Amino acid sequence: MTSLKKIPTVPDPRINEEKTVQQTEDLKLQMAKLQNMLYAEKKHSILVILQGMDTSGKDSTIRKVFSAINPQGCSVRSFKAPSEEEQLHDYLWRVHPYVPARGMITIFNRSHYEDILFPSVHKTIPAKAIKKRYEQINDFERYLRENGVVILKYYLHISKEEQKARILARTTDPEKKWKYDPADVRDEKHWGSYRRVYEKIISTCSPEIPWEVIPADHKWYRNYLIANSIVEKMQSLHLKYPS
Amino acid sequence: MTSLKKIPTVPDPRINEEKTVQQTEDLKLQMAKLQNMLYAEKKHSILVILQGMDTSGKDSTIRKVFSAINPQGCSVRSFKAPSEEEQLHDYLWRVHPYVPARGMITIFNRSHYEDILFPSVHKTIPAKAIKKRYEQINDFERYLRENGVVILKYYLHISKEEQKARILARTTDPEKKWKYDPADVRDEKHWGSYRRVYEKIISTCSPEIPWEVIPADHKWYRNYLIANSIVEKMQSLHLKYPS
Repeated sequence: MTSLKKIPTVPDPRINEEKTVQQTEDLKLQMAKLQNMLYAEKKHSILVILQGMDTSGKDSTIRKVFSAINPQGCSVRSFKAPSEEEQLHDYLWRVHPYVPARGMITIFNRSHYEDILFPSVHKTIPAKAIKKRYEQINDFERYLRENGVVILKYYLHISKEEQKARILARTTDPEKKWKYDPADVRDEKHWGSYRRVYEKIISTCSPEIPWEVIPADHKWYRNYLIANSIVEKMQSLHLKYPS
Repeated sequence: MTSLKKIPTVPDPRINEEKTVQQTEDLKLQMAKLQNMLYAEKKHSILVILQGMDTSGKDSTIRKVFSAINPQGCSVRSFKAPSEEEQLHDYLWRVHPYVPARGMITIFNRSHYEDILFPSVHKTIPAKAIKKRYEQINDFERYLRENGVVILKYYLHISKEEQKARILARTTDPEKKWKYDPADVRDEKHWGSYRRVYEKIISTCSPEIPWEVIPADHKWYRNYLIANSIVEKMQSLHLKYPS
């Protein structure tokens, strides 16, 4: 089992911030070029899944890492608590329509993993049904992969201290106050439980479509790691303009 | 492997038509009552999948068997050749949004099985990819079953002679002419290929959610068998009005 405690949330101190920020800008331009080819070729699609504790930086990652990309080829879908209509359906029902078409990139800000996380921590469905969801999600992602969807899963890994500082900023900083949600403070109490479920998810879902744990206390490092991972993955697809 | 050749397309001659038609009417009233409980309880949903050769009676089954049901709790989705947008997505993308919510009945007039049938007969995708689809569809249906969706799969089994007669009627009967499609005649040539693929589907997809092969040369018998099967299945759910 992955132990998140043992994975640092900060970069190696020898890594130079200024240089890394410059590298990230270069990577973003490369990503924009690759995305154009992905869009033209229409062979693969890319599904980026962002998960992490409250305040771990999911919104800010999307804003910072994907800002160079042509919005015609890229969309974002956020998953909040399921609506009454969604609750009457199988839990992947609200997710599947947003899986990208070939040529497109879609970013999931939270995802179907919330349907393991929330019920595990708050015990809203039987443990047996939760266990099934691990298998079902693996089947679903394998099916998508076999049908041209490249899935990239990032866990934004922050320390408890950093989360505290960020929640505090949301109560004081006028530019951040709108993001303050009393539920964040409530869920802070469940930090340990959420982390244990994340560890199980990261270990179990799945070796063929692995999670990357991203040290996310420093935004500049987090942005670099994600941009770099996406560019590497896109390069490995050997994208080509159709002749 | 199921051999469709060995399964009759007509009822045992001792079965009385008039009596059977009366039984079907009784079953339709029972179905309407059970549907009301299904809708009230909101615990299960029912997905009826109708497949069969052209002219095998899918439309007429829907009209005749489900006519007593409250349309507020029942909907029909037909799957034709995939659109350009649908072709850019994974093949279950167009299917999943129509999987019924708890409390509802949905009838698929053709279904995701077309994504095995057409490519198998017309060789539009590699054999390896088709083989994967059998597993993927089994995974998908198992997932749905584990999430409260009761799936009922009917193969409408007609003889080649009956199909010929029905296609002929579509070229002459003014009430049926609108259904005539030259593609039916073209696909008639592929009768043997389609039947072999159906046999594989019926044998392979899947023991836990089995197909029922419905002798369908006589509409009165076909309607009776499907109404009876649905009522039996609904009774086995032990539906209850919420207290």
